[in-house]
Amino acid sequence: MSFKTEHQPGMTETPAPQTRGFRLNHSMLRVKDPERSLAFYSRVFGMRLLRKLDFPELDFSLYFLAALDEGETVPEDVGERTRWTFSQRGILELTHNYGTEIDPDFHYHDGNAEPQGFGHICFAVPDLDAAVKWLDDNQVRFVKRPEDGALKDVAFVTDPDGYWIEILEPARLGRLGQT
Amino acid sequence: MSFKTEHQPGMTETPAPQTRGFRLNHSMLRVKDPERSLAFYSRVFGMRLLRKLDFPELDFSLYFLAALDEGETVPEDVGERTRWTFSQRGILELTHNYGTEIDPDFHYHDGNAEPQGFGHICFAVPDLDAAVKWLDDNQVRFVKRPEDGALKDVAFVTDPDGYWIEILEPARLGRLGQT
Repeated sequence: MSFKTEHQPGMTETPAPQTRGFRLNHSMLRVKDPERSLAFYSRVFGMRLLRKLDFPELDFSLYFLAALDEGETVPEDVGERTRWTFSQRGILELTHNYGTEIDPDFHYHDGNAEPQGFGHICFAVPDLDAAVKWLDDNQVRFVKRPEDGALKDVAFVTDPDGYWIEILEPARLGRLGQT
Repeated sequence: MSFKTEHQPGMTETPAPQTRGFRLNHSMLRVKDPERSLAFYSRVFGMRLLRKLDFPELDFSLYFLAALDEGETVPEDVGERTRWTFSQRGILELTHNYGTEIDPDFHYHDGNAEPQGFGHICFAVPDLDAAVKWLDDNQVRFVKRPEDGALKDVAFVTDPDGYWIEILEPARLGRLGQT
């Protein structure tokens, strides 16, 4: 591999052979109401449901979603599709613990209010202006519009549970952090 | 696209054209001590540091990490590399707010203790048994070993901030959720 990583204290610059083939497959967020979340992520972000896994004896179901590239194919066979799903990068896992959707007082913690931890997921989009219009057309709530704040050209919206989603256009960020 | 998604209430089965090119780029976690986290993710998970972005006027720095495939190349030019980083899937962004690393009482919230929200990130590995040995060799803390609990063949470990990391081998999960 010709790429030399940026040097920082702590970094092991050459990956150990024991880590070969490790892939960052997914991030998991708990959601109150899967119907509401599936409607949001499929309608607004074009995500597809690769697999739903039910664990009725444990009172939860898992939904694995991906924003696929145009023409990208996914195995039809369910076993193959499960293996494929867990072999990809950039999967979103939504966990539904049964019953939360009918509890009017129930809500999850977004990680940005105290106590802080997890911050956000992020979608790259080919055209930030068009994406902002699309998000407005779908009445998505903005935490920060691209023109707001110190960091221009980056937006933040919320999903139905209040989790933050960053929206950025890679081509606009080429000079980010260059001094 | 030949793949037909699994049907669930709420799902828009055909992505809107306005969502074309959307990609789930990264998930962001706040970390107390970047040196400690970079050592962990580069040593134990073989991640590379694609970009560090400093915002000294806002008192934070961002670290963008990826577990690259063998032979996968990354642009050397820093502007190209920034654009490339934000165009990928499966990037991990670590946010360091300056000063947390020297505060002995400071810690972030993992999302699994109350109040719950975010759950975990997940690495797919080619050989779960070898990965477990590697994690043990590196004194990584296990929340759940593959043989524990109702869900076999899946492990959970913690990162230096206590965030959960799932470890799975896709080939072992082909029958998961099939009735």
